[in-house]
Amino acid sequence: MALLIIGSKRADAFADAVRAEAPDLDVRIWPEAGRIEDIRYALAWHPPTGVLKTLPNLEVIVSVGAGVDHLLKDPDLPDLPIVRYVDPDLTNRMVGYLVLHVLFHQRRMCEFLELQRQRKWEFRGEPAMHEVRVGLMGLGVMGEATAKALKPFGFQLLGWSRTQKTIEGVRCFAGQEGLDEFLAGTDILACTLPLTPETRGMINRDLLRKLSRHGRHPRLPGPVFINAGRGGLQVEADILAALDAGELYAASLDVFETEPLPETSPLWTHPRVIVTPHNAAESTPESIGRYTVRQIRRHEAGEPLENLVDRTRGY
Amino acid sequence: MALLIIGSKRADAFADAVRAEAPDLDVRIWPEAGRIEDIRYALAWHPPTGVLKTLPNLEVIVSVGAGVDHLLKDPDLPDLPIVRYVDPDLTNRMVGYLVLHVLFHQRRMCEFLELQRQRKWEFRGEPAMHEVRVGLMGLGVMGEATAKALKPFGFQLLGWSRTQKTIEGVRCFAGQEGLDEFLAGTDILACTLPLTPETRGMINRDLLRKLSRHGRHPRLPGPVFINAGRGGLQVEADILAALDAGELYAASLDVFETEPLPETSPLWTHPRVIVTPHNAAESTPESIGRYTVRQIRRHEAGEPLENLVDRTRGY
Repeated sequence: MALLIIGSKRADAFADAVRAEAPDLDVRIWPEAGRIEDIRYALAWHPPTGVLKTLPNLEVIVSVGAGVDHLLKDPDLPDLPIVRYVDPDLTNRMVGYLVLHVLFHQRRMCEFLELQRQRKWEFRGEPAMHEVRVGLMGLGVMGEATAKALKPFGFQLLGWSRTQKTIEGVRCFAGQEGLDEFLAGTDILACTLPLTPETRGMINRDLLRKLSRHGRHPRLPGPVFINAGRGGLQVEADILAALDAGELYAASLDVFETEPLPETSPLWTHPRVIVTPHNAAESTPESIGRYTVRQIRRHEAGEPLENLVDRTRGY
Repeated sequence: MALLIIGSKRADAFADAVRAEAPDLDVRIWPEAGRIEDIRYALAWHPPTGVLKTLPNLEVIVSVGAGVDHLLKDPDLPDLPIVRYVDPDLTNRMVGYLVLHVLFHQRRMCEFLELQRQRKWEFRGEPAMHEVRVGLMGLGVMGEATAKALKPFGFQLLGWSRTQKTIEGVRCFAGQEGLDEFLAGTDILACTLPLTPETRGMINRDLLRKLSRHGRHPRLPGPVFINAGRGGLQVEADILAALDAGELYAASLDVFETEPLPETSPLWTHPRVIVTPHNAAESTPESIGRYTVRQIRRHEAGEPLENLVDRTRGY
């Protein structure tokens, strides 16, 4: 019985972490798969198309990320249980990223960084937290934890998801029919949606124009977009156009249509855009190792796997 | 019976806010004091030396800020009750500032802003929140509220104050004898101390060198200093020297020895320093007006004033 690690640049670190957790486990790193009949488990991140299909005795696929779009894009993906990576450490990091960037833009920090570069001492009169409405797009584990973290600061909270959710203190909207009202009441849009055929390219000019249509506090100069989900959700040309047209005030982007973000992208130098290298919720090898070994032990013991993916919905 | 507003550039806005709250109140703005015998209340921010002494029937002084160093520096300050401005809105803004800057440096954002300027996609491997120790210097209303706000993120919390405090989930130290141990265990020092003869110049090279001496997580490159108290607490030449010597990793400064921060200050352009224009907890005219009227009504009704200053301790 062996575990094969496929596709990540951090495969060596993952292997070490798994071995630290389960010294007896036979851990291999693709393409050095050895006797492929031994392989019963795969830990994968953007695995090359078709590789998973070649493993005749594979039983479970563990995704390195919370999103599984990097697996589902493989047309030859075998029909096996897929476990998403959901971990308190990962969730906590994501919450930290989103709270940081919500506070950053509520306080108009892009303007203050610009003023600092110009050595200018100037007041702007930022809104209070209770005067700002944060719309959480995606109400999974991460979206819900973010709502809980933002609540004590006094932000007004809205949420949107594919299916109706109920979260205390959050005005929840659902589906296509709830989208426009959600957007109209949202000043800072914080996105943790999964990438699926339905959500691909969803954050476009048309959607951005619907943001913060009514009731925005005059001290916030315009709507803000924060993406910590997947780059495929957004149309970057539209974000730039909306920023330059004044339809969008600022953005924090951790994910991009192409990663690493190409050196030629105008996003790098836009004064109202904060770029981070897809590190909002970096999974540490230790957590990944612990989680993978736990899934293997559960499966071996006949217990149910955790966080199983529903392929029809895509996450 | 009249209220005199003294010394603030925002005096007109304060007067409007007071009048909105109490239309019958006689509100004047210094130096147009009118018949000075009428003046029983003063709302003051950095009042010119000696002005308050000239008011024969003054009964109560309300400070525009939570700190009262701007009043106590007047050698002719009359011996009257001084009310500090303590307001949930002010406290909440301060908490937002401190949480923002703690998260900002825990995530090594100065480095990511620098990488963004260079169009570089690079991982740094920032520590998790539970791996970082935040030391709150000053455990008044703001320090305690900040501890409460930081706790859910998992940060390890320490606190230091002049006299011993007990706050759930915070390792509290007190006085000169507790200072070194507090500093040695602190990675991110967040300061909300009042400015008094004892605290003036306290944040110097010697103190900064004592920070984060043992147990710092290797993913945090060095200690961080955040000042949202008063500029007089810090020696700016020492902060710069500590940054350049690698004894300090980064700083967020909202207050300065001289305000506005002079254009010639090297703090403006230091790549590991975030400068904001003393706006961490900007008091809105509406809140100041509401608070001032409430104190006047309490005093007129024979009820005790709120948040009275103890002059011997200086806050």
